[in-house]
Amino acid sequence: MRILVVNVNTTAAVTDGIVGQARAVAAPGTEIVGLTPRFGAESVEGNVESHLAALGVLDAVLHHDGPYDAVVQAGFGEHGREALQEALDVPVVDITEAAATTATYLGRSYAVVTSLDRTVPLIADRLLLAGLDRRCAAIRASGLAVLELESDPARAVDAIAEQARAAVRDDRAEVIVLGCGGMAGLTGAVRERAGVPVVDGVPAAVTVAESLVRLGLTTSKVRTYAPARPKHLSGWPLA
Amino acid sequence: MRILVVNVNTTAAVTDGIVGQARAVAAPGTEIVGLTPRFGAESVEGNVESHLAALGVLDAVLHHDGPYDAVVQAGFGEHGREALQEALDVPVVDITEAAATTATYLGRSYAVVTSLDRTVPLIADRLLLAGLDRRCAAIRASGLAVLELESDPARAVDAIAEQARAAVRDDRAEVIVLGCGGMAGLTGAVRERAGVPVVDGVPAAVTVAESLVRLGLTTSKVRTYAPARPKHLSGWPLA
Amino acid sequence: MRILVVNVNTTAAVTDGIVGQARAVAAPGTEIVGLTPRFGAESVEGNVESHLAALGVLDAVLHHDGPYDAVVQAGFGEHGREALQEALDVPVVDITEAAATTATYLGRSYAVVTSLDRTVPLIADRLLLAGLDRRCAAIRASGLAVLELESDPARAVDAIAEQARAAVRDDRAEVIVLGCGGMAGLTGAVRERAGVPVVDGVPAAVTVAESLVRLGLTTSKVRTYAPARPKHLSGWPLA
Amino acid sequence: MRILVVNVNTTAAVTDGIVGQARAVAAPGTEIVGLTPRFGAESVEGNVESHLAALGVLDAVLHHDGPYDAVVQAGFGEHGREALQEALDVPVVDITEAAATTATYLGRSYAVVTSLDRTVPLIADRLLLAGLDRRCAAIRASGLAVLELESDPARAVDAIAEQARAAVRDDRAEVIVLGCGGMAGLTGAVRERAGVPVVDGVPAAVTVAESLVRLGLTTSKVRTYAPARPKHLSGWPLA
Amino acid sequence: MRILVVNVNTTAAVTDGIVGQARAVAAPGTEIVGLTPRFGAESVEGNVESHLAALGVLDAVLHHDGPYDAVVQAGFGEHGREALQEALDVPVVDITEAAATTATYLGRSYAVVTSLDRTVPLIADRLLLAGLDRRCAAIRASGLAVLELESDPARAVDAIAEQARAAVRDDRAEVIVLGCGGMAGLTGAVRERAGVPVVDGVPAAVTVAESLVRLGLTTSKVRTYAPARPKHLSGWPLA
Amino acid sequence: MRILVVNVNTTAAVTDGIVGQARAVAAPGTEIVGLTPRFGAESVEGNVESHLAALGVLDAVLHHDGPYDAVVQAGFGEHGREALQEALDVPVVDITEAAATTATYLGRSYAVVTSLDRTVPLIADRLLLAGLDRRCAAIRASGLAVLELESDPARAVDAIAEQARAAVRDDRAEVIVLGCGGMAGLTGAVRERAGVPVVDGVPAAVTVAESLVRLGLTTSKVRTYAPARPKHLSGWPLA
Repeated sequence: MRILVVNVNTTAAVTDGIVGQARAVAAPGTEIVGLTPRFGAESVEGNVESHLAALGVLDAVLHHDGPYDAVVQAGFGEHGREALQEALDVPVVDITEAAATTATYLGRSYAVVTSLDRTVPLIADRLLLAGLDRRCAAIRASGLAVLELESDPARAVDAIAEQARAAVRDDRAEVIVLGCGGMAGLTGAVRERAGVPVVDGVPAAVTVAESLVRLGLTTSKVRTYAPARPKHLSGWPLA
Repeated sequence: MRILVVNVNTTAAVTDGIVGQARAVAAPGTEIVGLTPRFGAESVEGNVESHLAALGVLDAVLHHDGPYDAVVQAGFGEHGREALQEALDVPVVDITEAAATTATYLGRSYAVVTSLDRTVPLIADRLLLAGLDRRCAAIRASGLAVLELESDPARAVDAIAEQARAAVRDDRAEVIVLGCGGMAGLTGAVRERAGVPVVDGVPAAVTVAESLVRLGLTTSKVRTYAPARPKHLSGWPLA
Repeated sequence: MRILVVNVNTTAAVTDGIVGQARAVAAPGTEIVGLTPRFGAESVEGNVESHLAALGVLDAVLHHDGPYDAVVQAGFGEHGREALQEALDVPVVDITEAAATTATYLGRSYAVVTSLDRTVPLIADRLLLAGLDRRCAAIRASGLAVLELESDPARAVDAIAEQARAAVRDDRAEVIVLGCGGMAGLTGAVRERAGVPVVDGVPAAVTVAESLVRLGLTTSKVRTYAPARPKHLSGWPLA
Repeated sequence: MRILVVNVNTTAAVTDGIVGQARAVAAPGTEIVGLTPRFGAESVEGNVESHLAALGVLDAVLHHDGPYDAVVQAGFGEHGREALQEALDVPVVDITEAAATTATYLGRSYAVVTSLDRTVPLIADRLLLAGLDRRCAAIRASGLAVLELESDPARAVDAIAEQARAAVRDDRAEVIVLGCGGMAGLTGAVRERAGVPVVDGVPAAVTVAESLVRLGLTTSKVRTYAPARPKHLSGWPLA
Repeated sequence: MRILVVNVNTTAAVTDGIVGQARAVAAPGTEIVGLTPRFGAESVEGNVESHLAALGVLDAVLHHDGPYDAVVQAGFGEHGREALQEALDVPVVDITEAAATTATYLGRSYAVVTSLDRTVPLIADRLLLAGLDRRCAAIRASGLAVLELESDPARAVDAIAEQARAAVRDDRAEVIVLGCGGMAGLTGAVRERAGVPVVDGVPAAVTVAESLVRLGLTTSKVRTYAPARPKHLSGWPLA
Repeated sequence: MRILVVNVNTTAAVTDGIVGQARAVAAPGTEIVGLTPRFGAESVEGNVESHLAALGVLDAVLHHDGPYDAVVQAGFGEHGREALQEALDVPVVDITEAAATTATYLGRSYAVVTSLDRTVPLIADRLLLAGLDRRCAAIRASGLAVLELESDPARAVDAIAEQARAAVRDDRAEVIVLGCGGMAGLTGAVRERAGVPVVDGVPAAVTVAESLVRLGLTTSKVRTYAPARPKHLSGWPLA
């Protein structure tokens, strides 16, 4: 099967990292295709950028040429999953939700450790809408921006592990979710330091997407994600 | 003061109707300026269209020339209010939330009557995120599309009033909220038929916006709506 | 229009302060009439006093001679709003709810800073019943009694600002609500010290009441606030 | 021990009925003393009457001469329990809460059947504040006023049993709570018709009060129910 | 009446302590019969042990010879109450729920102080399922194992009182619930040190059971606790 | 990898059906080993049977000879998953939770269609504890017992499809979850009749278990599922 893994920012290097993670966990026979939006922000850390990302991801997928079996939206806490589900027939998996549901199989409660404090509310909104909030013990910020996480992995591990340990100790979290695509590759180091399972969203989402395809399941089209009514769209970018 | 009232769809006639409603309730000295997005859908009735609207509204406001004191986003159940709050210094009022909070002053619980069944989940999500869901007794669909509501008011009143009465009788609603910009002007007729107060979002939002300005209050900038970090946005429309 | 603003305690100086705040924000053409209960407590800081206040306010309004368009109950966290809504035809606005809904337009979450710890549960109950609890990050006590707040504004500002800053830092509040009528006039000083918007209940409630009147809306009479059934009331105070 | 059982309305015959129920279940050695408020409504079916009842009950208890070990407030869904807890050192039991907690020992969920539709919100508020709402499957109105229930028991049983059966069938209730003091004595007939356990508030509350006394437990005085601060109360009835 | 009080572990000395507590509070005429499971763990502090306890208690009751009027399951936070309710016709009272409902009559919120941190989730699950979680301010662990609590009462009081005081100060608890059968007899010492009412589960449950019997109430058999369908059970222990 | 799939009842034919479903979806290289408890009920449709199943499953797994990588508990709504997680080092997946989380990827809300009305509360409890209740629109009973579902597939499809359609129409469900192991093999027929995606728990759980193993994730051992403390277990079956 072929899975599109779509970055939410316009930084190709981030897409490469995401694709690498996805391929590392993909089953034999699963082809991972990475997409980078044609427009948007170099990193997504706020409301405007997140709304841009929603459309950037949709645009990237709709302009992709060739068949695919599922789509993974690889941004933690971003908007847009519902739009993809409406526009597409294949399963759509957001890494925020995939990470959270995966974490719930591993412990009573999980904590998310993300980049900046300003992204915490975005993540909280996604988890609330997805009904995944009750087992979320805390959403903590490492204090490092997305691109800083990428550029200084050692410092990133320190900052994330400190919050992870605090979440286990003070928030009674039993599992840590890495709440940022830019944290890819830090899973092992954080787990070692935190002493609990650590879930990264992209690999989790790839396994969810593969599972849905294997189970022959796809998005329900009866109401929330029914195809859009035929109507005039004007201007950019989807007209 | 000057309030920008921004339509979420690209149909200028709808903007005209919204502006008319806004002006009818505005205080002396309040200037209402209507804006229509340069891109988007002719009516907003789904997830993709709603995400387009979020950016279309933001684009319209950011490209508006001249000062203003507050912004009203005139789409019921659409995305984008958070992005406006982040991008602007003046108060931002979404008509969904203004209608709901206004309704809570009038009765123990309210019901929303909207256009199509497919827009119900969008409204439910907005109310959940805003913490306004607990006093919402029901969200009911009239079965008429946004543009049908505009074009056949008599049929619209029939369809809305039927759902309003059902909400009062079966859902224990005590107030009705008209859940669609296209229902402007039907308030009186629905109230007469339903026997309970009927709240229309645009007038409600204008009074909320005026109140915030008079109280000297504006959006908190400490976390969720802090200004975006300086970064590279590429492509259109906000770069 | 004429708005009755009713103090919940029997201290006329507090009524004067409340009326002053109300007039400062009232629109041109709005007349503010202050009422002081004929019976009750000199300040309201507990359950018995709050129940007395509910009846004292009702008594004051029912004995008021002359027309009015709306009523503001100017006690933070007190009982009685529902009784007024049942007894009257005009809109009734409690300052607790007006402050909280106003705050929700300004930030993701708000904290209330009130007088004594013993009043926290009363406020929490009002917010829970009003469905306004989910966006309330915390209710904190300044440790000063209502009349101390009145008599020593500098000390009051210190105590309130300390709790406000703690709420922003530790509870993730983005807006502060002043949770006591006796805090009138401290808004500016607290805002300066806390760095976030500060909402005072009386001005907020006046604008809500004015808005409801302008919108032609009044309390739904179908169930919860239907007029009382004709029946024999004996003794004091409403017979 | 001696338990004060306080009616919430001013109808002495209702007090007599309540006292009769209480005595029927009281343990050997428990003395039941019935109190009727000196002021208030002949029956309590709304917000104003309920607030009057809160003070009427408090007044009746504070003016009671002689010792007692516990107080039962015998009104379903009325205000005032918190004020009694603040004012007194002995345990206070509201029949609404006693009935609900008793019901939770008997089945997964319970439904309340009350008098008029207009009293449903009052009951709902009490259960919400008490944290007893989640296992409440429904609150249904029989359509009979309090005094009608008293005067025509056969018709009352018919009306209550019809709602009880509907609650079991449609709301998945497994236990019925009689939600009105005036339903005293109908328990057996309703149980026979509904096929599930039926809980009456007054007997339930008497056993709870007796249990608290036997366990040597009384109200916590650290915060919510700490004694009132010394202050000037003016006017009647508690000054 | 005769009440079976069933220990959840296999340590007879613990049963003796529980029976002693039960008898100390039982009404004249109430006979307390203590039962110890034939199999299970010497103390219950985890998931496997708790599931064993559920069956051990059921086995002990079903093999008990002779009539009884109610059953008290004397384990804090253990599984099995639902199974007893299904299997028996008489009332069943779990001490976790009895302690929590008793505590709600005494203060706005309560905290549980239990043995080890690992038992906190078990207790939290019971309270959530029982709908008793909202008034639970915290569940705190003393750090002492069940049998340590038994063997060193002075140390136990120190550890429990420290957590109790922290719960009152930091979690706003107003009542303490002793969350372990092994804490029997420490109630007075903890109350003295914590300054708030302290509820012990076994005595509370005995009074609840007695009350249900006196009220003539028993478990609803319409759905959740309907008798098991006739079917083949094989193997051990209930076949 | 090798996955143990454990039936909750003692009927070997049901185990065979479950194993068949599991193998149909298992990835190449995944070995499915079916286990049938040595004791318990021939079908699980109530509280006692469910508690027996919890221990029967645990006993079966602990007595299994040879290595395995994950365990699937194949009973819908049964107790015991937490005990397995505590006792084992490998991932444990309950089919109730796997079906529910899978369903949340496919639509806004899902409904469970189960066997008998009496099993509805058991399922509701599992979903509540797992934090998966908010997106569950309804749990409906087909009215057929577990073994009837097995023995008359045509009648089963009729009964299930009727409830599925009702859930889509009346409860706004967008996805159907088959809430009984005995419904294996009916997925296609129900989907055709209901017009929405249909999720069966066993296949869903197998893919979740495979994913966890591939991701190298296993149960957190820091608190809730920490290994049992060394202690004396007496009697059977786990001593």
